[in-house]
Amino acid sequence: MRTSIATVSLSGSLTEKLTAASRAGFDGVEIFENDLLASPLSPEEIRARCADLGLSIDLYQPMRDIEAVPAEEFARNVRRARHKFELMRRLGADTVLVCSSVHPLAVDDDALAADQLHQLADLAEEFGIRVAYEALAWGRHVNTYGHAWRIVEAADHPALGTCLDSFHILSRGSDPKGIADIPGEKIFFLQLADAPLLAMDVLQWSRHYRCFPGQGGFDVAGLVRNVLGTGYDGPLSLEVFNDVFRQAEAGPTAVDAHRSLLVLQETVGVATPPAPVVPTGVAFAELVTPDAEPVAAVLGALGFARAARHRTKPVDLWQQGEARILVNTSGSARRTGTGLAAIGLESPDPAGAARRAEALLAPVLPRRRAAEDAPLDAVAAPDGTELFFCATDRPELPNWRADFVDGAGVPHGTDDNEGSHGADVTGGPHRTGVHRIDHLALTQPWHHFDEAALFHRSVLGLHAQESVDVADPYGLMRSRAVTNADGSVRIALGVGAAPTDDTVHAQHIALATSDVVGAARRFREAGGRLLPIPANYYDDLAARHEFADGELETYRELGILYDRDAHGEFRHCYTMTVGRVFFELVQRDGYRGYGAQNAPVRLAAQHTARAVIGG
Amino acid sequence: MRTSIATVSLSGSLTEKLTAASRAGFDGVEIFENDLLASPLSPEEIRARCADLGLSIDLYQPMRDIEAVPAEEFARNVRRARHKFELMRRLGADTVLVCSSVHPLAVDDDALAADQLHQLADLAEEFGIRVAYEALAWGRHVNTYGHAWRIVEAADHPALGTCLDSFHILSRGSDPKGIADIPGEKIFFLQLADAPLLAMDVLQWSRHYRCFPGQGGFDVAGLVRNVLGTGYDGPLSLEVFNDVFRQAEAGPTAVDAHRSLLVLQETVGVATPPAPVVPTGVAFAELVTPDAEPVAAVLGALGFARAARHRTKPVDLWQQGEARILVNTSGSARRTGTGLAAIGLESPDPAGAARRAEALLAPVLPRRRAAEDAPLDAVAAPDGTELFFCATDRPELPNWRADFVDGAGVPHGTDDNEGSHGADVTGGPHRTGVHRIDHLALTQPWHHFDEAALFHRSVLGLHAQESVDVADPYGLMRSRAVTNADGSVRIALGVGAAPTDDTVHAQHIALATSDVVGAARRFREAGGRLLPIPANYYDDLAARHEFADGELETYRELGILYDRDAHGEFRHCYTMTVGRVFFELVQRDGYRGYGAQNAPVRLAAQHTARAVIGG
Repeated sequence: MRTSIATVSLSGSLTEKLTAASRAGFDGVEIFENDLLASPLSPEEIRARCADLGLSIDLYQPMRDIEAVPAEEFARNVRRARHKFELMRRLGADTVLVCSSVHPLAVDDDALAADQLHQLADLAEEFGIRVAYEALAWGRHVNTYGHAWRIVEAADHPALGTCLDSFHILSRGSDPKGIADIPGEKIFFLQLADAPLLAMDVLQWSRHYRCFPGQGGFDVAGLVRNVLGTGYDGPLSLEVFNDVFRQAEAGPTAVDAHRSLLVLQETVGVATPPAPVVPTGVAFAELVTPDAEPVAAVLGALGFARAARHRTKPVDLWQQGEARILVNTSGSARRTGTGLAAIGLESPDPAGAARRAEALLAPVLPRRRAAEDAPLDAVAAPDGTELFFCATDRPELPNWRADFVDGAGVPHGTDDNEGSHGADVTGGPHRTGVHRIDHLALTQPWHHFDEAALFHRSVLGLHAQESVDVADPYGLMRSRAVTNADGSVRIALGVGAAPTDDTVHAQHIALATSDVVGAARRFREAGGRLLPIPANYYDDLAARHEFADGELETYRELGILYDRDAHGEFRHCYTMTVGRVFFELVQRDGYRGYGAQNAPVRLAAQHTARAVIGG
Repeated sequence: MRTSIATVSLSGSLTEKLTAASRAGFDGVEIFENDLLASPLSPEEIRARCADLGLSIDLYQPMRDIEAVPAEEFARNVRRARHKFELMRRLGADTVLVCSSVHPLAVDDDALAADQLHQLADLAEEFGIRVAYEALAWGRHVNTYGHAWRIVEAADHPALGTCLDSFHILSRGSDPKGIADIPGEKIFFLQLADAPLLAMDVLQWSRHYRCFPGQGGFDVAGLVRNVLGTGYDGPLSLEVFNDVFRQAEAGPTAVDAHRSLLVLQETVGVATPPAPVVPTGVAFAELVTPDAEPVAAVLGALGFARAARHRTKPVDLWQQGEARILVNTSGSARRTGTGLAAIGLESPDPAGAARRAEALLAPVLPRRRAAEDAPLDAVAAPDGTELFFCATDRPELPNWRADFVDGAGVPHGTDDNEGSHGADVTGGPHRTGVHRIDHLALTQPWHHFDEAALFHRSVLGLHAQESVDVADPYGLMRSRAVTNADGSVRIALGVGAAPTDDTVHAQHIALATSDVVGAARRFREAGGRLLPIPANYYDDLAARHEFADGELETYRELGILYDRDAHGEFRHCYTMTVGRVFFELVQRDGYRGYGAQNAPVRLAAQHTARAVIGG
């Protein structure tokens, strides 16, 4: 029989996957949509590559959440499907996988599902395409192969058949004997996977995934309140079975563990460490680099001006609006290359913030680096990043800014970013509308990701959002953001796919602008290089959203990515990487996330570019 | 409140864990039994260490499967408990955790459970010990904290209370409000853990744990037969979402994927690759080493004689009974150090075995290394180990043995291991009763563990046993054995805790002897060094099993480990490591396993010894 493999089953870029499949002797492939979106090859080039490699494209997949929805929603789905059928024609793929819906609007109405799938098949037929409808094991209403087949049978269309997947059938314990009732010619496709018979039960959960209080989702504090209510006066003891902690160095894990109990005791009211002092903004981000020029070139092109220099140290202050970036070329950077070394957090009470941090076992750093410097409270985060608790130009407090001597150009402390930034030796004055740092993204040591979230939450008083998985071509990453209430401090904590992966995924500084298109253009005009985004990404955007005339073309030209959530829209683009750092320009119109939807495309583009322009 | 942490929550040796807990500011610890068993410190020394570090020992844990069992079983449990109470007295621990039973003999009888726990508490009281009874979330009959408390209340004994664990309570969604009904003084202990709210459901299973057909537990072939029965004539296509494959190099993964489909097609009868030729024994194991002397010293002490030398290559044949080990000092070993490089498998049809391997995409190695050598069929396993398909002294087939020229000493091919091995330049002649290689343990590349099992199963026709988790002090390992029907070929495939872990866990050669005590003694007398096993391990053996007078003392003296299963007993001990290789002496009296029960103790002892005596 002919053999085929879905590109999602293999690691790497789409072309690496195709080459590996061909060499191993496969006859064909299923193209997984995300692999296509992330590929710099056009559909025609992918088609030609497959032909050269002797591979047929047996399936394009998946199309989701199509059927059994209200008419208006279905009209949007048909529009999206038409885009994908056009793509498939370019690709030379004649079968598309449609998974049973998991959409909240999908209704439990087989007749409606059959009718809408019939309409979809009508459209597909115009393109010479067959639709293979498959029951996901977790489909909202259709989750067994028998159910999917009944709908296909009722729809009764020559271009509509079913797709069987061994995982979806066997994971639910369905009896495959019933397959005999389906005519072979109506089985358009057969996907195979095995799986370990995982007892995905409470025992596995307990043995491998426990974590310290505050790192998970349990209301441990509520339980402890109940226990204390009985008069219990024994110890609070941690018993945590966790595969990652088993590998991690015991010292930091123990500190993290103890911190979790201190916070827990505070929460239940039996301990009163100094109260958290939540930061109100980002005073600065500090880059260390052995060579300031590549960093200066990017900052200059981004519209930053070199505003001041530290009085005693080789540290320059670059500024635009309220976005301040320190560039430090002192000795230690020679060893580590260009990286994000410190964050200045604007604090209502710097000394209080430091007391809180110290009480929660954060390593406190020396307050004063040189005799003449302003005293600065600082602690080290679990990943080694230095966190400074700062006051910027507040008369009653030591002013870190006073250690910097203004150069030519912008007077310090201005809130006016409309043209007041003077010329500078490195970058020209031009407005990109950057007014502040939107967020900072830090890569965490693999073994201490949970620790980092607890640290930022408890020590800094930030709120931790849910952790999300992000597919990188070479593994699965996790990301979790911590923020203050008004979003003026946002830190995205990321972790690579494997313990060895520390350096692959760079840190970055995201700069807020009110006009990302203008900012991107001016960055390019000033000689900056933006990360190229594959054209396939924009074809997909066109299928998913409607844009004003020319809008999408502009994004495509500049490499601007797009997302939206219930609160608004998000447009963002990336610079090439300097050392371990890159910059993002973001225009956030109410949107609350970080573009996680686009992260796989960005990560693949970074692998493609492997574009380290310095450092 | 006082804070405490279970040693299982941290990585490393017991002393590393205690130090980390103390430095982080904990007041006390729970001693996890396995950490004590694996520690070279005596209970008194552990007690003193804790005192020095300012740590109290708040709990000894766990004691399992005690209650609600038939009288005879309970008598054994009381005997075991008495041993542990004596241990706790030495340790200075005054509270023991008893988990609700998961034993198959446990009955659903609260009155019996209460009565037996009362008896246990009576015994504990003699030692000044309190028993804290806890409901495991997966307990056989008792799995909620309310149920455990009702039994404690009914037992009504001052030395019996309950232990609450936030994981066991919250993971089941129990309402912690009911805790108010328990008097605080009857809550003897409180264990805390959080956990991510994992939807451990079919979606997670699908997204992260799929694997190729034959690597998991599904009857994929049965399903495919059903589909083919319908007349389906599309491709067999693999769609596998797997976190490990996402990171693994695409080339080997694709080969493994294609192999899985070839085997699947054979199973369902639509393809007929050459039939498997199951090996009937181990002809030899081949070590490569840059320096033969340390290996020769160990082999000599193990009772092997240097029997012959390869006619053209720097390879010595060491032999004892039917156990043959080649020691290869050719150039390539200089780069890789001492390791297990090849296995000779005795094959009924070497050429047929090679044809099978080639048809299933195994890389075939050149048949003849030098013009005058006997042609040898060989393939590379996924970990790079060379597998030779051999015939030993079978007239109709090329004889690998004929390439070796006998030296002084044993004539080749003898079945007589009673004194016929002559003296040798390196080792003295003495009988350790080694008659064959029992099994070979190979460490697999982290990203290709599932591939290795499928390879050995499909290419060699071996049977793959279930995979087991083994706790190493620095992470969790997995191990899976593949064997032929009569157990004359056994290969244990192991994988480390993390991708970085390739070299930590050595390969080993296990040698079968009918008298491991005698063999160990003679090995030591000949100057060999055995891996020291902690005394605590033997105290635990005494609690778990009854031995003849002096038997346990002998094991303790020599470092012999003990296990039993439904089929018989197992006694085994280990040499120190040479390069990446160590040897095991095993006496297998019907027992079918590999001593996985003892592996954590062995691994900890190896970390303690860090005893590389050469290579």
